[in-house]
Amino acid sequence: MKAKIFITLKEGVLDPQGKAIAQSLNNLGFTGINDVRQGRLIEIEIDKDNKPSAFKEIDQMCQKLLANTVIENYKIEIT
Amino acid sequence: MKAKIFITLKEGVLDPQGKAIAQSLNNLGFTGINDVRQGRLIEIEIDKDNKPSAFKEIDQMCQKLLANTVIENYKIEIT
Repeated sequence: MKAKIFITLKEGVLDPQGKAIAQSLNNLGFTGINDVRQGRLIEIEIDKDNKPSAFKEIDQMCQKLLANTVIENYKIEIT
Repeated sequence: MKAKIFITLKEGVLDPQGKAIAQSLNNLGFTGINDVRQGRLIEIEIDKDNKPSAFKEIDQMCQKLLANTVIENYKIEIT
């Protein structure tokens, strides 16, 4: 079973990396860029029989290791 | 207009960060993890009137700055 985890910074949390990307894009001549935010995408291949139990396990992984829930949101997508 | 860019390492490219995550998850007691790959997620808010032109511009951004097309794939999603 394959899962994708999308980890993004919460609204209001400063994202200097995103700002740097926006600035670089501006310098390259791209216009009309209002905001850039950088997050992470983690793909996990896991041996589980059913989606609900895989989802629960991956949610635990996010809470314990993958995401910093103080400043980050995460979304799990299982395919 | 908002766009999400999913940047992942190409198949076959070593991902030491992913391996480290897999190892850490194992150490935490999670079992059945076959593979972990870490990628990036970039969210861009851009002033464009229509989707095709936004897509084209963001594709250019990926080629020129956001992705390293030698080792990375990218997927653009516009909402």
